[in-house]
Parts: sequence; C-alpha cells; structure tokens
Amino acid sequence: MESRPAARRGPKPNPATRRNLVEAGLRMIHAEGYAATGVQGIVESANVPKGSFYNHFPSKEAFGAKVIDAYFDRNENKLLATFGNAGAAPLARLEAYFDDRIEAFRTLGYAKGCLLGNLSAEVADHSPLVRERLAGYFDAWSRFLENCIAEAQEHGAVASAIPAAVLGRFVLNSWEGALLRMRAEKSDAPLIEFKQVVFGRLLS
Amino acid sequence: MESRPAARRGPKPNPATRRNLVEAGLRMIHAEGYAATGVQGIVESANVPKGSFYNHFPSKEAFGAKVIDAYFDRNENKLLATFGNAGAAPLARLEAYFDDRIEAFRTLGYAKGCLLGNLSAEVADHSPLVRERLAGYFDAWSRFLENCIAEAQEHGAVASAIPAAVLGRFVLNSWEGALLRMRAEKSDAPLIEFKQVVFGRLLS
Repeated sequence: MESRPAARRGPKPNPATRRNLVEAGLRMIHAEGYAATGVQGIVESANVPKGSFYNHFPSKEAFGAKVIDAYFDRNENKLLATFGNAGAAPLARLEAYFDDRIEAFRTLGYAKGCLLGNLSAEVADHSPLVRERLAGYFDAWSRFLENCIAEAQEHGAVASAIPAAVLGRFVLNSWEGALLRMRAEKSDAPLIEFKQVVFGRLLS
Repeated sequence: MESRPAARRGPKPNPATRRNLVEAGLRMIHAEGYAATGVQGIVESANVPKGSFYNHFPSKEAFGAKVIDAYFDRNENKLLATFGNAGAAPLARLEAYFDDRIEAFRTLGYAKGCLLGNLSAEVADHSPLVRERLAGYFDAWSRFLENCIAEAQEHGAVASAIPAAVLGRFVLNSWEGALLRMRAEKSDAPLIEFKQVVFGRLLS
C-alpha cells in the first residue's frame, strides 16, 4: 500500500478537489481494479496536482475507504428508492431491485461488477481498513433484503424455516457470485438464473 | 498488460523452469492479485533470470492463463476424488465437498478465496484469453455439481422443477459469493450459512 506521513502541507484542502479525486478514483478503481489504479493516474484524471492528493488523504488505502463510502452512498439511494415503495408487495420490490440491476449491467456490457465484491477479492486480505468497510456495507445492504424477506414471511409468501437474516445474506452473496460468473461469461445468463432460483425456489 | 514479441531467444526452454515459474505465479497471484504481482517478483520467487520468463511465455497474460490451468488441475483432482466416491449418496458427496473446502479456508484464515473468482473480478474485463479460460473452468466445475444434483433428483431427494444444470451453476456461483463475503468478514459464517440454505432449503 502506498502511504505518506499524515502531516499536511500546503493550502487548506478544497472540498471540490476532494470530491473530484473521489469521483475519479471510484470510476478508475471500479473499471480497472485497485492495484492497477495508481495515485498518479487518479490525480491526472481529476486534473489536480499530485501533492493535493496527500493533502486530502493520508494514504491510497484511506482514499480507497472513501471511494467505497461514495460507492455505497449511491447504492443506498437506489436501495431506499426501491425498498421504500411500500405500495408493492415485498417480493415484487425485491424482484424489481434485481431487474433494475440486471438492466444496468446489460447497458454496461456485463463489465465492472460490484465494487464491494471486487475489493473483497482484491484488497480485503491486505487492508483491515478496507475490509471492515466492506463488511459493514455488505451488512447494511443485506438488511434491506432481510427486511423485505421478513415482511414476505409475515404474509406467508416465503417459508419461515430459515431466518430472514440468513436468507437476506445468502441472496446478496449469491448475487455477488452471479456477478463474477456474468463477467467470466460476458452474458446475463447467470443473473437470469439467479432470479429463476431465488424467486422460483428459494423464496417461494 | 505486459507483453513482448513472441520471438524466442536463448537456450531451449527448460520444463522445470517453466513449472517453477507457474508455481511461483500461482502462489503470488492467488495471495496478492494479478496486477499486484509483477513479472520481476515472479522470476525472483522462482529464482530464475527474467529473460527465461519470456523464453517460456509470450506475455504476462499468456502466463496468467497457464496459472489458471494449474489451479484448476489441482481443483479437478479434488473434485474427482470427492465426486467419484460412488459409495456415498449424491447429496452427501456434495456436502462432503463443501465441508472439505470450508475446513481448508479455516486453515487459511479465510484468506485468498478462489482464484477463478478473483480473476473474474480483476482480469476478466481486460483479457479475453483469461476470461474464456475462467468461463470454461467454471463450466467444468459446475458440471460436477450438476451431475450430483441430477442423480439426487432421479432418487427424488431434490425437487426436479428447476433443471440440475441451473441448480449446479447457481450453487457454484453462490459459493463464489460466499467466499467474497468470507473475506470481507474474515469468518466462516457466510460458508456455514451457504450450507444451511443450500442443503436445508434449496436442495431438499
């Protein structure tokens, strides 16, 4: 991991510069991976001098944690919009969420996958800071699914033998695995089969 | 991707050197990732001169494909040993396979995960050669699961509404996702819940 002493030099950090750096980093790390993305490339893409990177972030690792925050912020907005729709039945909301994600990956040509999954594979073993961030966001994300499944269980639409929390985590992990297979096959077949098994068997 | 012209120079490639390079590459890429592993580090770890790398492999990408071959060879031996045990019931064989894998990840401290999953996240988007290799091995691996599930369906131990091929691919993808979560949480909980849902609900 690249790092530098935390002492700050130079002018007061500019919040717009910080935002531009995080945006550039999110775009590049999601597309190319963490190790393949260097600080030099990020500052060039954000069009700021290299020194200002370390003016805002003590290390690439600390920067990576902020990139994950920015990614999940956006993800959470989609989750709130989909799962907040109390007019739809719980399983219909869950299905709409995955349909929306599948459509987004079609548009992307089945590339990039999920940043949380990518960094779990590439960085979690090497950075406790990043690892704990990933675990926390997976947990928050799972809870949206869990709440939906718990509601479906209350209505009798899903069998209650396995707790909603376990099912919510399992469904999310299975989705992450389907995204890996999607990228290996460059096809939506793994996502469509994910839906077939989750909604046709698991949550029925 | 690093690459060099395919023309070979120097002495005839030595098969032992080639094996040492692939072993070192497998160890390093599995532990550190693809971009984080440089050709320089691989030749140092294998204790061979850098020139001999390009004497054996036209590019890092071509080397990566051979590393995947070596990984799956080993994986396939475990699959053949477990699934070839015709004395056990098909679901018992499937469960024994995952129990063995879970035990191996406990020993590893929940690190490294599956090389096929890792490279699907990190490399598949950028290398058609690696991507097709991954898709092919995922397919071969899924077939072991599919055959086991088909046998269980014939015996009436698993519902037949969803084809064994779909269930086999889904179970494998879910396992890959559980491994990502295992690494984020540094815990076997996602693997244990994987088994709970797959054997307690999905294949029942």
